[in-house]
Amino acid sequence: MSNCIIAQSGGPTAAINASLAGVIEAAIESSKIEKIYGSINGIEGVFKNQVIDLGNFFSDYPEDLDTLKKTPAMYLGSCRYKLPEYDKAPEVYDNLFQFFNKLNISYFFYIGGNDSMDTVLKLSQHAKRIESSIRFIGIPKTIDNDLPGTDHTPGFGSAAKFIATAILEIAHDTYIYDLQSVTIVEIMGRNAGWLTAASALARTTYSNAPDLIYLPEVSFSKDLFLQDIKQLQKTKRHIIIAVSEGIKDSNGQYIAAAEAKSKTDQFGHAQLSGVAKTLEAIVSNEIGCKVRSIEISTLQRSAMHSGSLTDINEAVLVGRTAVKKAEENQTGIMMTIVRTIDSPYTVEFKSDLIENVANKEKCVPLEWITESKNDVRSELIDYVFPLIQGEPSLTYKNGIPNFLSIKNASKYMI
Amino acid sequence: MSNCIIAQSGGPTAAINASLAGVIEAAIESSKIEKIYGSINGIEGVFKNQVIDLGNFFSDYPEDLDTLKKTPAMYLGSCRYKLPEYDKAPEVYDNLFQFFNKLNISYFFYIGGNDSMDTVLKLSQHAKRIESSIRFIGIPKTIDNDLPGTDHTPGFGSAAKFIATAILEIAHDTYIYDLQSVTIVEIMGRNAGWLTAASALARTTYSNAPDLIYLPEVSFSKDLFLQDIKQLQKTKRHIIIAVSEGIKDSNGQYIAAAEAKSKTDQFGHAQLSGVAKTLEAIVSNEIGCKVRSIEISTLQRSAMHSGSLTDINEAVLVGRTAVKKAEENQTGIMMTIVRTIDSPYTVEFKSDLIENVANKEKCVPLEWITESKNDVRSELIDYVFPLIQGEPSLTYKNGIPNFLSIKNASKYMI
Repeated sequence: MSNCIIAQSGGPTAAINASLAGVIEAAIESSKIEKIYGSINGIEGVFKNQVIDLGNFFSDYPEDLDTLKKTPAMYLGSCRYKLPEYDKAPEVYDNLFQFFNKLNISYFFYIGGNDSMDTVLKLSQHAKRIESSIRFIGIPKTIDNDLPGTDHTPGFGSAAKFIATAILEIAHDTYIYDLQSVTIVEIMGRNAGWLTAASALARTTYSNAPDLIYLPEVSFSKDLFLQDIKQLQKTKRHIIIAVSEGIKDSNGQYIAAAEAKSKTDQFGHAQLSGVAKTLEAIVSNEIGCKVRSIEISTLQRSAMHSGSLTDINEAVLVGRTAVKKAEENQTGIMMTIVRTIDSPYTVEFKSDLIENVANKEKCVPLEWITESKNDVRSELIDYVFPLIQGEPSLTYKNGIPNFLSIKNASKYMI
Repeated sequence: MSNCIIAQSGGPTAAINASLAGVIEAAIESSKIEKIYGSINGIEGVFKNQVIDLGNFFSDYPEDLDTLKKTPAMYLGSCRYKLPEYDKAPEVYDNLFQFFNKLNISYFFYIGGNDSMDTVLKLSQHAKRIESSIRFIGIPKTIDNDLPGTDHTPGFGSAAKFIATAILEIAHDTYIYDLQSVTIVEIMGRNAGWLTAASALARTTYSNAPDLIYLPEVSFSKDLFLQDIKQLQKTKRHIIIAVSEGIKDSNGQYIAAAEAKSKTDQFGHAQLSGVAKTLEAIVSNEIGCKVRSIEISTLQRSAMHSGSLTDINEAVLVGRTAVKKAEENQTGIMMTIVRTIDSPYTVEFKSDLIENVANKEKCVPLEWITESKNDVRSELIDYVFPLIQGEPSLTYKNGIPNFLSIKNASKYMI
């Protein structure tokens, strides 16, 4: 019998605690695992000796595991720490492994995105270097859906469902006035446009919103953008546009930065703002109709109140399978979701070598983007569709969702 | 037997169609009403002869009435039309009443905010002037909750529930990082701070967010604002602030405009942005910690996916009671909700003379705001609490909410 430790890292999603709950559930059931520790604020908790006894807490409050599955953002806190290369800072690795040994850790689970997978890679390589038997397992999560090796990442489906719902509600909000308008909605994703592309799922029999979709995978042209709008305005009053925060011009420069630069040249000062605000100004100046920009901001990462049941259920199973893989003595792997059948949507939970996935980025395939660079093809919609199905049954308390907070578990800190 | 016509006006809410459904339901049941017409885009539909036969449509699709109750924004479309004074444009009134007579209208229901109640007032006065027997009934709706004569307005509870939910989720999103941060959330309300004040309902046993609340009812001081933050930062890492879009300085000038002006003086150019962005820049310059601004924008008006069941049910009953009042031959009134018992929360549906409510604005009472001008008192929380209780059971289709659109009912246009 030995112990395990779990940590969470990177940016929030609605499903990252569902994976945590999956790991805890399976670890409680495991005959190989005794203590279940949680590291506070990702790997930094290990450096700072900030660790909670999750096994004890959830044995005392088993019903809270269900609440944990429906709580957004990191229950254990997060960090943005990038582990240095071993030769640059061997003492960092020594510290970490000393701490692991002190707590008799055999299994380390890291739930996170790209940077977290890099941490898993480095730690598993170091274990091999020093012949440590600790197993290191990466559990993916990111609303960006940009990790390779897996059909999709937990957290993406919930964010996609919220984005599609928000766009549909924005469409209802917009259609009420009988005047020409342009509404520009900015969606997260610096390099990968998956979430912006998912806005296409908002379309219904009566609404084609978003009418235009601009992704960072293809270059953005201000002239074509204005041409797209003017073309649509010949037949439509309300144009709703989904735009990724990361769209770039043909020189690879972010549009917001490029526009700020051009204004700097003109007026001698830079005005920094988001891409939606930048495009709003362009439409206002060049077309002159009513125009509004909406930046959905962090709401899209943590909108558990509009989560996807498919996403939450899969996130739990990814966590559970990670424990199984660890029990099988696997290490240096990231858990993956493999879509085995398209219809009916069927997946299996597998794993891939961490070196195949860490520090790589999966973007929207160019063949899933229309030639006009302003929309997605049906392949993209078919791909996202099953990921946003179903609604988790949230419990409410005092009119707001009942979430779990580690602040109420402080006496379980060790 | 005679006919009725219904119109919707002003800005969207999640509950405005619930009132429409209530009117339609009761009108279908009424022995005095034969035809149920809907005017497209508020009163403008009457000018433009754009009218739909709602009675026929919902007789053919009775199950759609339930979907209508859970569809945000105006099913019939809206307008921002202000009816001129009679002496300035008598022909406008002649046109309207000619149209009403042509359709054999006896009852006119207008669902809207301040401007719509002004329209009801003017039309009912004109009816008296020309001895017309048409009854004019106002049905309140606004997320701003700024109509007098009624305990609260339909639409406010759903917006308040979404705001409180969003603030709680933003809190979870913010707490994950172990670093000092300020998050500023901008909430709608130019003169009345009800919705911003309702953000206090986000507070739980583990989260005091929003830590600071600034309302337009009291003057805003940049110095006190910075002092409030610095004071809290002595004991807290994460400060979350709810701010009304309409906060003004002691000269009554909007903060965003005042700051833009001061920058104009300094650099010779104006930079217009929202109040949250303006405060973000102030905190960034004067305190220098991590700061983020979030403008919830139109999402808060139409977020039916996070609606309040209490609000939706009351909106339906307000609509139903309006038909009853019309059948009793009342005219020139606005429907009201009267809170008869605080606990258990109990209301009655009544009416008030339209001249008592039109063109007046109800703000948050100063005695419900703390002396420090940066929070609300328990009276405010007790007042809003019952209005955000309960969740409507939305149906979903293809992973997104199933809403109703008039675009699918075009053959019922007359």
